[in-house]
Amino acid sequence: MKFAHKVAVIGLGMGVHHLQAAISYGAEILAIVDTDEEILKKVGGENGIPEDRRYTDWKKVLTLPVNEVIIATPDQLHREMAIAFLEAGKNIMCEKPLALTREDMTAIIQAAKKSDKKFMVGQICRFTPAFVKAKELIDGGKIGEIYYAESEYAHDYAKILAAGGWRADPVRNGVVGGGCHAVDLLRWYIGDPTEVFAYGTHKLLPLVSYDDATVSIMKFKSGAIGKVFVSTGCKRPYTMRTQIWGTKGTILCDNTSDSMTLWKVKENGVDLADPEIIPVKVNNHNANEEYAAFAETIEKDLSPAMDAVLGARTISVCLSIVESAKTGKPVSPDYDF
Amino acid sequence: MKFAHKVAVIGLGMGVHHLQAAISYGAEILAIVDTDEEILKKVGGENGIPEDRRYTDWKKVLTLPVNEVIIATPDQLHREMAIAFLEAGKNIMCEKPLALTREDMTAIIQAAKKSDKKFMVGQICRFTPAFVKAKELIDGGKIGEIYYAESEYAHDYAKILAAGGWRADPVRNGVVGGGCHAVDLLRWYIGDPTEVFAYGTHKLLPLVSYDDATVSIMKFKSGAIGKVFVSTGCKRPYTMRTQIWGTKGTILCDNTSDSMTLWKVKENGVDLADPEIIPVKVNNHNANEEYAAFAETIEKDLSPAMDAVLGARTISVCLSIVESAKTGKPVSPDYDF
Repeated sequence: MKFAHKVAVIGLGMGVHHLQAAISYGAEILAIVDTDEEILKKVGGENGIPEDRRYTDWKKVLTLPVNEVIIATPDQLHREMAIAFLEAGKNIMCEKPLALTREDMTAIIQAAKKSDKKFMVGQICRFTPAFVKAKELIDGGKIGEIYYAESEYAHDYAKILAAGGWRADPVRNGVVGGGCHAVDLLRWYIGDPTEVFAYGTHKLLPLVSYDDATVSIMKFKSGAIGKVFVSTGCKRPYTMRTQIWGTKGTILCDNTSDSMTLWKVKENGVDLADPEIIPVKVNNHNANEEYAAFAETIEKDLSPAMDAVLGARTISVCLSIVESAKTGKPVSPDYDF
Repeated sequence: MKFAHKVAVIGLGMGVHHLQAAISYGAEILAIVDTDEEILKKVGGENGIPEDRRYTDWKKVLTLPVNEVIIATPDQLHREMAIAFLEAGKNIMCEKPLALTREDMTAIIQAAKKSDKKFMVGQICRFTPAFVKAKELIDGGKIGEIYYAESEYAHDYAKILAAGGWRADPVRNGVVGGGCHAVDLLRWYIGDPTEVFAYGTHKLLPLVSYDDATVSIMKFKSGAIGKVFVSTGCKRPYTMRTQIWGTKGTILCDNTSDSMTLWKVKENGVDLADPEIIPVKVNNHNANEEYAAFAETIEKDLSPAMDAVLGARTISVCLSIVESAKTGKPVSPDYDF
């Protein structure tokens, strides 16, 4: 018998995409939750969730017979909810970033270790078609050994911030909140950085107290080097341009183009003039694949590809970048969770 | 009466382009010099330089009635030649990098200060059409204040090095030799960096003793931040992709494409979906414009736009990047020449 996915979705910003992905997969939605009644009504109506399954208080969900909770609330709320739902015996998919502080991440990890349920962090770029294809090419040896890679998170938050809301909370930071996507890609492709260094600046978003642009570089155990640029006030369209430079070829990809580029040393020598242009589906937030991976983890009793510890490692790098930009010194991320 | 340009070109690698630019401009070529007699014969024949104007010993040029010397020899030879020609009363255009050490640069600057002749450093990217257009857009306020810029020098030296030659000399380094182009662009657009930090790696060019890839970041007095990536062994086509991110728009350009991109905040709000695509001439080594600027400096008795001190400042940043990659510490470039 197929596992019966009984789902609650908490937070209906990004949560809407998770909700629709779960519905597409065939899950039963027992609860949607948002503190904003207007949003709750709108999303509920549009997605056929009956009124008696709409909640403004997330704690009500603790008593429901759901076996999966998707936490898509503001970052600073993840800890309390994650721990409560783990203790209530629910499987959890938690939006990135896992949390904003080391203390919060450690508390979640401890609860996840105590639990026999699945805990997956929603680093959705690991499901973006172009980034998945890049991983395949790398693992297939197509570009040899990576010696340098860079990714960026460039987004204009000006309008979002002007509308108010949790993103302006000084506990947040563009490097952790959005930059974790780019950092996580580099970790996925190369491994954990051993040291990072960063410079930040603040010229675009007067409504936040943190740097709105940060450029960071890092070195990896393999000897590879990398760079992540984060700009949350940029005056250009959203992009996560990513380049992976290997000893036998180079990959150029992003999450908003319908093709990616592979330059590859030919068997009989170097001839890089004509790259391979690989068509890819544009699906920069591929919630369907992400939910499917979560569901499969539960159905087949697998370890999540991105569990709480791995999610925390990505954020640990982000926190080290923020620290370096503040102190002016190189920082070695602490992966000991 | 128009100034009579009587030119000697020393070194016929890049020097061939300078030679042809000078001929196009109408200069009289009194001497071409190369230690390789085959090259001398070939270049002389192809460009109509009579046999009695071809030399293997550059010192012969000191006694000729030339008023301009173009020094396009290996970097480590610039000092001796520059000083000798300045003392002999010649105007000089010297290829980038000005020199490879602080000592050599200081000696050249002292000689240039003592002389009443012109001394120009050939940072040719300042004549590349796309980079010139970017400077125009920036100076015209089209992208507001720059908060971040990055440029890169990505070139595969594998074949050049396999053929032997001066580029493998351990006194050289990719960051100084080629990376100076990208560093100089950032200095041109933003000003002098106040601090740099860098990581290097070495996985591609076994024939050299220095890092074959270096990623560096920097901060500027204005509060802007920047990045320069240098890879002299990359497996992809040559590129100098450059992005300049401002508070009102963003420029994307390089030296090998026939267009550049300008995203610009519209007068009545932010609408960045449709960038302006600006056609540009592909002329990544625009020697004609460069020689014309040198000639005009002499004809009109102007200060060279890029004199020895400014050329040295660019190399000082490069040397700081190399030092940071070696020591693991941030370095403040020394601009005191």
